[in-house]
Amino acid sequence: VEEKDIRADSSLIGRIEICYPQLPKELWKKATSLRWLQSNWTGVDALLAIPGAQAHPAVITNVHVQPQSMTEHMWGMALSLTRNLHVSSRLQAQGVWDNKTASTGLSSLADRWLCIAGFGAIGSRCAAVGRVLGMRVIGISRGGRPHPLADEMVGPERRAEAFARARVIMLLLPDTSETRGFVGTRELDAMNGAFLLNAGRGTAIDTSALVSALTDGRVRGAGLDVTDPEPLPAGHPLWSMPNVLISPHYAGVHPGYDEEAFEVFIANLERWMKGQTLQGVVDRALGY
Amino acid sequence: VEEKDIRADSSLIGRIEICYPQLPKELWKKATSLRWLQSNWTGVDALLAIPGAQAHPAVITNVHVQPQSMTEHMWGMALSLTRNLHVSSRLQAQGVWDNKTASTGLSSLADRWLCIAGFGAIGSRCAAVGRVLGMRVIGISRGGRPHPLADEMVGPERRAEAFARARVIMLLLPDTSETRGFVGTRELDAMNGAFLLNAGRGTAIDTSALVSALTDGRVRGAGLDVTDPEPLPAGHPLWSMPNVLISPHYAGVHPGYDEEAFEVFIANLERWMKGQTLQGVVDRALGY
Repeated sequence: VEEKDIRADSSLIGRIEICYPQLPKELWKKATSLRWLQSNWTGVDALLAIPGAQAHPAVITNVHVQPQSMTEHMWGMALSLTRNLHVSSRLQAQGVWDNKTASTGLSSLADRWLCIAGFGAIGSRCAAVGRVLGMRVIGISRGGRPHPLADEMVGPERRAEAFARARVIMLLLPDTSETRGFVGTRELDAMNGAFLLNAGRGTAIDTSALVSALTDGRVRGAGLDVTDPEPLPAGHPLWSMPNVLISPHYAGVHPGYDEEAFEVFIANLERWMKGQTLQGVVDRALGY
Repeated sequence: VEEKDIRADSSLIGRIEICYPQLPKELWKKATSLRWLQSNWTGVDALLAIPGAQAHPAVITNVHVQPQSMTEHMWGMALSLTRNLHVSSRLQAQGVWDNKTASTGLSSLADRWLCIAGFGAIGSRCAAVGRVLGMRVIGISRGGRPHPLADEMVGPERRAEAFARARVIMLLLPDTSETRGFVGTRELDAMNGAFLLNAGRGTAIDTSALVSALTDGRVRGAGLDVTDPEPLPAGHPLWSMPNVLISPHYAGVHPGYDEEAFEVFIANLERWMKGQTLQGVVDRALGY
């Protein structure tokens, strides 16, 4: 059944066992038969914030179809900032060929440290690109366990130390109680002119502290696919800062996304029919 | 001696044997004792166009210190275009969070062909990045000989065929009689919505034919660090095309460039003193 059928016949919602890709907010409490929701997104923070969803007995599964586009997006933002392409864009808008302005304050990446917080499928791909660009990689993960694509791995408690060494910092964290405020004043104070990229969740960064750090150079440039608040309201100082790139939360979007997410659902549906374990089961306690 | 000394004492120029980093235009004919010029740039087309320079018996050497920054720059331009970061920049300038506009018309790179024309130190590094992003690589070089970082290599006579398959095309060619007009109407006709990047020399592309191809979609986006004419004049249509990124010829610039170029000169000077072969000798017939 489709959403419009449920809205037309209110008795239907109580009989639905499986749902894809999202269950509308107001229907969670009425979904008494729901046993499994396959989300078509990765982040489930908004979903788990719906009244009735966190405590609902249904299994929730998510999809992981965006590592490739997230990697391309993160590196696009990083290289735009380090190679002053955002400066070139502004000169282009004025129709001015100004080699001197465009080439002032460039940053090299070779032999510099790339710090990646959240070292899963996306983080490790971002690391592979960094390595081929000659960077050294320090990863931050909950366990801090070694990873073949990282020169060093540390736990989140050592993040300020990792940030202090990094030229480029990539945040790829879900929104959980552990990651909110992951980058606050203390962490920004540790940074030495790093480029900070975020495509996880906006809540990982204390936004007003970031604005200060961008002003005084602790953060040299920021590329933000996610913000807090999100959407970023009109008139927010981040919009007009010359060393900030805002991309409105689409790092994971790519041609074929819907088809790929649907394939994940179909493969899981086969597992469900056979009584097998589903892929991408969300741990509600961890929040991802 | 420095340039100001030569200008102060006109007898000096006739006695100079070695010159770094450039010899002013008007002095070439008077530099009768010059035996070696170490340029601090890679491209020598402008230098060889100076009256008296092409036929001068002095050895000319160039430097190759920019493969790393050129690679970062080329990929920054490529990913800006495929990930719509240029669209996001425009939305940011308006202070508007518009996910739909920004995420419309994105391009994926995995399993797509990356075509690189000019497969030297820079081209092969660009290829390595493409491979880690999951692309297949087709290289174009004079000899078309196999290369470990290319899935296929072809000679320049097969370029239209290579362009036809490519999602991303990177031009890294010197300005020579063979490369002028390398991408003309015939080659643009072969392209299927490719992203075209150029950081070699502007003369490789027929500019007015490119403007047409950008308008009708044969070329989906262009990132140009070099143009023809260069500098791009005020009011040129390329300035305001929505699918074009112009960076004013600084892809090779990076912090430490001058020091690195000077080190090349010093190392060559030691070779010169010992009577050894210099590194980076320009072949005047080939023009690079």
